[in-house]
Amino acid sequence: MNAEVCFTPHQLSLYPVQDSIVVVIDILRATSSICVGFAYGIEKIYPVKSIEECVNLVQKYGYISAAERNGEKIPGFVLGNSPFDYMNPALSGKTVALTTTNGTHAIYTAKKENAKKIVIGAFTNQECLLEWLLEQKENVLFLCAGWKDKFNLEDTLFAGSMVSALKKYGYQSESDTAYASELLYVQAKNHIHDFLKNSSHAKRLSHLNIQRDIDFCLQTNLAQVVPVFEKDYLYNVYTPQPVGNSLKMYAELY
Amino acid sequence: MNAEVCFTPHQLSLYPVQDSIVVVIDILRATSSICVGFAYGIEKIYPVKSIEECVNLVQKYGYISAAERNGEKIPGFVLGNSPFDYMNPALSGKTVALTTTNGTHAIYTAKKENAKKIVIGAFTNQECLLEWLLEQKENVLFLCAGWKDKFNLEDTLFAGSMVSALKKYGYQSESDTAYASELLYVQAKNHIHDFLKNSSHAKRLSHLNIQRDIDFCLQTNLAQVVPVFEKDYLYNVYTPQPVGNSLKMYAELY
Repeated sequence: MNAEVCFTPHQLSLYPVQDSIVVVIDILRATSSICVGFAYGIEKIYPVKSIEECVNLVQKYGYISAAERNGEKIPGFVLGNSPFDYMNPALSGKTVALTTTNGTHAIYTAKKENAKKIVIGAFTNQECLLEWLLEQKENVLFLCAGWKDKFNLEDTLFAGSMVSALKKYGYQSESDTAYASELLYVQAKNHIHDFLKNSSHAKRLSHLNIQRDIDFCLQTNLAQVVPVFEKDYLYNVYTPQPVGNSLKMYAELY
Repeated sequence: MNAEVCFTPHQLSLYPVQDSIVVVIDILRATSSICVGFAYGIEKIYPVKSIEECVNLVQKYGYISAAERNGEKIPGFVLGNSPFDYMNPALSGKTVALTTTNGTHAIYTAKKENAKKIVIGAFTNQECLLEWLLEQKENVLFLCAGWKDKFNLEDTLFAGSMVSALKKYGYQSESDTAYASELLYVQAKNHIHDFLKNSSHAKRLSHLNIQRDIDFCLQTNLAQVVPVFEKDYLYNVYTPQPVGNSLKMYAELY
């Protein structure tokens, strides 16, 4: 099996999409938050491209609204893109209509390019994701959502950590994107916060005071979920469990 | 001034092309060989997109033919893509019509996107290029030619080495591509050959027995040239000098 990496949705058509499970990665913060939402019992999430479509779904079906653009929650929406928005027991059993700057764009690009399967990855669900991927016995293509179709570092580091893990189970990589992701991850893994301090995303969002979000999104294995995209919705396909103690404890700190 | 990096021609339109000098990088091997050719006294090089166009120019104007596809010289052409092809005093004063898999594609993408100026970079002309860029006092965008519109490692390492050098002169970078390039270069610089052994390009070209070419292309400062693209041709704009002793000595080893 192969484990490859695509740095941005813009380049996805150049990679072997149709033969692979595509893991969509948007560490800051869409995929991290999606995992938290499912850990808190959200039933399903409808990712949508536009704010208009999000509003329509909310009006039509009573879904909970969630929208972010350029790092900020859209006024009037219930949820934004912060994982802390999703740490709410009231979300249990609910459906959320979600649109974000990069994450939902990446999901729809993978759909358009006919990915074999689409799944959500983040540090928050890393271990469950690895376990689930190993069970599937399929090629894996990590799709970094990036920032407006450009490369970003935090998504790449997560892709590198997963390539590194899958290689221990015999997966191979042909591409320099996978190789470079792994090299960057190996360099960063013991001081990932410092490593990301100079990243474009950290600089871009610094005025939004989201350091708490960044700290959270770099924690591993807080959410025991594997969200899979099927027929327009994301569902958690991992054995349902109550919110992990570690996540509860983390949430209680704030 | 800014120093940014674009990983592939495919993404160039997302970067600030029109406000920047674009440095086209195709370490293995087009830009390395172009620098060697100018060091050996080539007067000008006409980069062309297709083999047909190359043949037409050769027939019409008597240019010397040079063509490579997928790592191999096209049969019947005088020159291929190996720097050793260009270490020939008979090329002095001549014009070459050149087409390669990635390098010429990158040059034309930069032209199409209205780059402020287009210049050729490689380890072989690194020091002169740095000196020339500092004289220009303009934003610089390093364009990695990559492999068929995908990211590759060796072009990125060179971009990283240049970003690292320019930062010492006060240049700034905003993008994660520049940051990641620099991080990879810092990790690789003391053992760049080992670092590239697992790269896709090294694997892809291994059957072509071009280890000698790779060793050469990773050497720095063997060619005292700065090839600039103007009105369809590349010209050396660096103070003309005879072939450097270091390059002569290297050539004589083979």
